[in-house]
Amino acid sequence: MTFEILHQSKKSRARVGRIYTPHGIIDTPNFVAVGTNGTLKALDNQMVDSIGLQLMFCNTYHLLLQPGPDVVRRAGGLHKFMGRKMPIITDSGGFQVFSLAYGSVADELKSRGAKKQGGHVMKISEEGVLFRSYRDGSPVLLTPETSIQAQKSLGADIIIPLDELPPYHIGLDKLKTSLERTHRWEKRSLEEHLKNRANQAMYAVIHGGVDPELRKKSAEFLTALPFDGFAIGGSLGKTKPEMVEMLKQLMPRVPVEKPNHLLGIGDLESLEQCIPLGIDTFDSSYPTRAARHGLLLTQEGGVKAEKAENANHFAPIERGCSCWTCKHFSLAYLHHLFKAREMTAYTLASVHNLHFMVELMQRYRNAILQDLL
Amino acid sequence: MTFEILHQSKKSRARVGRIYTPHGIIDTPNFVAVGTNGTLKALDNQMVDSIGLQLMFCNTYHLLLQPGPDVVRRAGGLHKFMGRKMPIITDSGGFQVFSLAYGSVADELKSRGAKKQGGHVMKISEEGVLFRSYRDGSPVLLTPETSIQAQKSLGADIIIPLDELPPYHIGLDKLKTSLERTHRWEKRSLEEHLKNRANQAMYAVIHGGVDPELRKKSAEFLTALPFDGFAIGGSLGKTKPEMVEMLKQLMPRVPVEKPNHLLGIGDLESLEQCIPLGIDTFDSSYPTRAARHGLLLTQEGGVKAEKAENANHFAPIERGCSCWTCKHFSLAYLHHLFKAREMTAYTLASVHNLHFMVELMQRYRNAILQDLL
Repeated sequence: MTFEILHQSKKSRARVGRIYTPHGIIDTPNFVAVGTNGTLKALDNQMVDSIGLQLMFCNTYHLLLQPGPDVVRRAGGLHKFMGRKMPIITDSGGFQVFSLAYGSVADELKSRGAKKQGGHVMKISEEGVLFRSYRDGSPVLLTPETSIQAQKSLGADIIIPLDELPPYHIGLDKLKTSLERTHRWEKRSLEEHLKNRANQAMYAVIHGGVDPELRKKSAEFLTALPFDGFAIGGSLGKTKPEMVEMLKQLMPRVPVEKPNHLLGIGDLESLEQCIPLGIDTFDSSYPTRAARHGLLLTQEGGVKAEKAENANHFAPIERGCSCWTCKHFSLAYLHHLFKAREMTAYTLASVHNLHFMVELMQRYRNAILQDLL
Repeated sequence: MTFEILHQSKKSRARVGRIYTPHGIIDTPNFVAVGTNGTLKALDNQMVDSIGLQLMFCNTYHLLLQPGPDVVRRAGGLHKFMGRKMPIITDSGGFQVFSLAYGSVADELKSRGAKKQGGHVMKISEEGVLFRSYRDGSPVLLTPETSIQAQKSLGADIIIPLDELPPYHIGLDKLKTSLERTHRWEKRSLEEHLKNRANQAMYAVIHGGVDPELRKKSAEFLTALPFDGFAIGGSLGKTKPEMVEMLKQLMPRVPVEKPNHLLGIGDLESLEQCIPLGIDTFDSSYPTRAARHGLLLTQEGGVKAEKAENANHFAPIERGCSCWTCKHFSLAYLHHLFKAREMTAYTLASVHNLHFMVELMQRYRNAILQDLL
């Protein structure tokens, strides 16, 4: 993997770059869609390739349990297995293990506690984390080494070291302990990776929760190691302003010459606020999940497909949109499909929203090239 | 609409024909997929067109309640509304009204009684049938005239007159009474249709349940009227042999020079047994429903996608299959998508099964052309 900066904005930290991977180019800044199980929900990967989505995020946790890394290895890797020609990034599996155990920040803040999805952490030790499979209840040991070995079998273009996702409500001492272990885990992950690079790049995950000093410490520790890029993970704060403030302090400590990634954030407002801070890639299930809920993204804002006024809207969702959905179907038809609870609605809405994201990021890159952002 | 017989088999009543409609040709015998709400489940109509499915069945009952015939008329008709270029057939709405009230034959035989889907017949009279909308509980009056007017708004290539679907367990007297009213309704439907043909063809529906004499009477009555084709509806018997026996007696009474259609039957065994009896078209949700349940159709029989042995089947579902799914994805990937409960599985399996049906019917036509069937 190589990274090239085409233009540094004169107005902000925003930059336009290009990541070269074995499966093609990722123009940055860019949006990364989430295909947890090796597919975007309600879409097939050939269609996704044709939309021009340059990077897809797949979850090692889910793929570890189903179909398992051995099946994917025998298939010739994730790209061949899932019929995708363009780049893929996988995470370590840690995020899901811990977020299923602790619940997400939102769950915590709403006192929803741990999700009852059957994911269950049995033991966290220096070695790694032992959890029960949500599929069959069998115990699975995830260590820096087994995570990287799994990610070698999957064969994504970009992989991620094992980290711990501490709960949002954690004392400073515990956060420190967690961070230090995460650093050791990431270092072990890197060492395992460097035994056999296999044409993959590895991004570190900068942690430290909402503590600025720990974030600084994490950036210092990790950027001293030969990672290919840097992701930002862990608790980013309770609110968007908190997140933005944290990133403002952190981003100057992240090497400009390497690509970076903001984990799990990619809603429209966050993109607008974080691209000027110099973030290169963002992953989020927001546009596809919104699509399945009938929220269609347009330059004039979100359109709720099921709204009564759309029953007779015989034009496309957005005038001039060149996506498959807008080329072939009207908003009135989508309205009807949502009303009739047809799965086809989810597919057509997802195609549109994903296409919207691809075009939106192109507009961001153009704006940066012109120093407008 | 015109109908041309290209070849009459020397071995059976099977024939190869061609129906010319305003939206293109339907080669017969052919399979007709069911897109109740104006879409095949989990597929978009552009994809369906590209598979080469020449005729799609849409249900007036569902479209009447959502989005309503006026919306479709304003959209410029069903073809424009749903983005389909190839021919469409709609039914009268009667089948669903009555089957929701009485339950299907299978429901009856299993003593399941009427389905609890909220469809509810309030009154059947000479005028028509009054029922409650399953969507909002409002009363809807379906008469021969309102059904045809709705089907005029929808604008399918082939339309169907209003009929009554009597329950399977009905006394002979009641069946006779029902048949006579159905005949009057069909005649009224035809008269309504002939006021404004609007380039649509109308198929009568031959009734008479499982009584050979009434079937004969129904065929005599309806074939004396200027219908463009003849569908066979009502109870076809408890078992496949009963259905085949009934059709053996009935088909010689159906005019050979007009196309005919067997309503609601299209499983593989029925096709094999009924094509030699001279049936031209068959509609069924079997291949798409089977697909959603993970049953993939191949020339060597059904393949259950979720079977453990398919986890490592890195070749397509069927060697040499030219469908989108088989060209781009392996059976192992489909196995995984079904295991992971991804909607994409339903789409890819439906594409394959529908393509299989298109090719299967082509093989039947070739066999007839060679007098092998």
